[in-house]
Amino acid sequence: MRSGQVTIKDIAKELGISASTVSRALKDHPDISAKTKEAVNELAKKWHYKPNAVALSLRHSKSNVIGVIIPEIVHHFFSSVISGIEKIAHEAGYNVMMFQSNESYEREMANVQALLSSRVDGVLVSMSKETSDFSHFKELRDNGIPVVFFDRVCNELSSDNVIVDDFAGAFTAVEHLINTGCKRIAHLSAPQHMLLGQNRQKGYRQALLKHKLPIDDELIIKCDSFEEALEKTPDLLKLPQPPDAIFAVNELTAAGALSVVKKTGFKVPEDISIIGFTDGVVSRTSDPALTTLEQHGYEVGLRASELLVGRINEGDMDYEPVTKVVKTNLIVRGSTKN
Amino acid sequence: MRSGQVTIKDIAKELGISASTVSRALKDHPDISAKTKEAVNELAKKWHYKPNAVALSLRHSKSNVIGVIIPEIVHHFFSSVISGIEKIAHEAGYNVMMFQSNESYEREMANVQALLSSRVDGVLVSMSKETSDFSHFKELRDNGIPVVFFDRVCNELSSDNVIVDDFAGAFTAVEHLINTGCKRIAHLSAPQHMLLGQNRQKGYRQALLKHKLPIDDELIIKCDSFEEALEKTPDLLKLPQPPDAIFAVNELTAAGALSVVKKTGFKVPEDISIIGFTDGVVSRTSDPALTTLEQHGYEVGLRASELLVGRINEGDMDYEPVTKVVKTNLIVRGSTKN
Repeated sequence: MRSGQVTIKDIAKELGISASTVSRALKDHPDISAKTKEAVNELAKKWHYKPNAVALSLRHSKSNVIGVIIPEIVHHFFSSVISGIEKIAHEAGYNVMMFQSNESYEREMANVQALLSSRVDGVLVSMSKETSDFSHFKELRDNGIPVVFFDRVCNELSSDNVIVDDFAGAFTAVEHLINTGCKRIAHLSAPQHMLLGQNRQKGYRQALLKHKLPIDDELIIKCDSFEEALEKTPDLLKLPQPPDAIFAVNELTAAGALSVVKKTGFKVPEDISIIGFTDGVVSRTSDPALTTLEQHGYEVGLRASELLVGRINEGDMDYEPVTKVVKTNLIVRGSTKN
Repeated sequence: MRSGQVTIKDIAKELGISASTVSRALKDHPDISAKTKEAVNELAKKWHYKPNAVALSLRHSKSNVIGVIIPEIVHHFFSSVISGIEKIAHEAGYNVMMFQSNESYEREMANVQALLSSRVDGVLVSMSKETSDFSHFKELRDNGIPVVFFDRVCNELSSDNVIVDDFAGAFTAVEHLINTGCKRIAHLSAPQHMLLGQNRQKGYRQALLKHKLPIDDELIIKCDSFEEALEKTPDLLKLPQPPDAIFAVNELTAAGALSVVKKTGFKVPEDISIIGFTDGVVSRTSDPALTTLEQHGYEVGLRASELLVGRINEGDMDYEPVTKVVKTNLIVRGSTKN
């Protein structure tokens, strides 16, 4: 193996350990065993590994591209995040390469492989709904590529995260419905293996609990797309006791519910109030316009991109992950009562 | 130079001619001079150039990735196109890598460089509004990467194009307004250096001409985004003779105009009819829902992707470009009269 091209990854591969372990061994980190440190240092010496120069040259030989994997670009929230990401990335001299997972685990893995082949300098990910195994993301890290997750994150990975305050947002939304006289509030929810889905549902339940309203499981439906709302909202309206409000987990689901509720002959907000999550063009142009939570996608993108560019510049995969939280705020419009 | 790695591009570079010329010279194409053919064949022999094997190995050594450059993912039309592109690309074993130009010529050039570095197998482009020099696209072709343009195409490039029938669509839209009693029809238009902008305006003018209505230049305004419509529609409404209909060049512009018209106190469609272009969630959920042209973005994506995958499989840059046209159709909703 030639000198000047040896990387932490090469050493890690040869020894069958992770790049992060190699990095820490080279820095005499207390968590690493003496035996591992000896093996790493011996090989590093034999292969003429030069930490800083190599890191620098590797960095320079790379692509100046940041990769982004998002579930679906059709959501206003994700296109706002992309704008925020590009703002910071472009200022720092990076181009932004995007992939859609289309909510497919298999596709997400293929995206990761394409990012590895393109030698991107760092990756931003919002996970697909299907993803419950995370080894493809670990592969990025093992290849010395920092990863920052946003919005759709996972507690099982020790990684940098930028999230919106889903619990507080949902709590605020449902409390607003209660304060404007609603008593039987339905929730169109995201899958519960997603942290986001869990936290928004927790906020919903907590608001009902605080105000001593019963939690009725027939009012909580897994439904998180425009099409699904067209399909499932009619069942809600046919209940012996239909809801007097709907809290939808995202904007397009709220728009779908609004369309069904109006077509069925209910008045919004007089008969049924509707509240969404994310403030996009759809929320602003629907009639009545939708009360919603401003999710600050642009700011999420800024924070995630800043964090990633910082990690790339540090040039060291041995860092303590952080989680940044972006607050939501309620925008009151015509789809809820005064 | 080692055998088995020589490409048409290498020969082209050495001789200072285009890859397409080399390809045609090797095939004894009548358009290529005897002198050029001799130089090409001599070098090909000297370097042990093997056309088929090399093309194949090159193909296999590449990325199995198709690159896409779109102006802005926030438009429903573009996200539909992406879905169509991905359908065909995934079936053919390609991953799809996307870049936004953000309507910037400079950014578009940077996107092209990133696609070249990633060794993508082919590229799909819808040009930025700023682009009027096309050498960056020629660079893709010179590197043996086929390019197919969609929607935002340009007559000056000899390239494969997939376009929607903008002229006929606009003509149909404006004729529908005339047939429902409108006589003073404003047009919120796209920039006229864009073929799409030209053709939609031509369709508008042709419909007025056919029905012997005057063409009033104060009713034709360059205005093609939601924000711009919020800003410029009020001026239209303040004219001594305000319009009785608005034909907007895209969906978000129509939504912006609708919002202003309603706020100003005009009734839609009784006082002012509004018609857009592209049928997205915004058109379906606005109130009244927008009459519009279904632009079949998904089908545009399918056709463009099919064409590109075919070009990649041919493995030969010497082809006659084709233009495919996807028809639009009118969807009548509440924003126009019966």
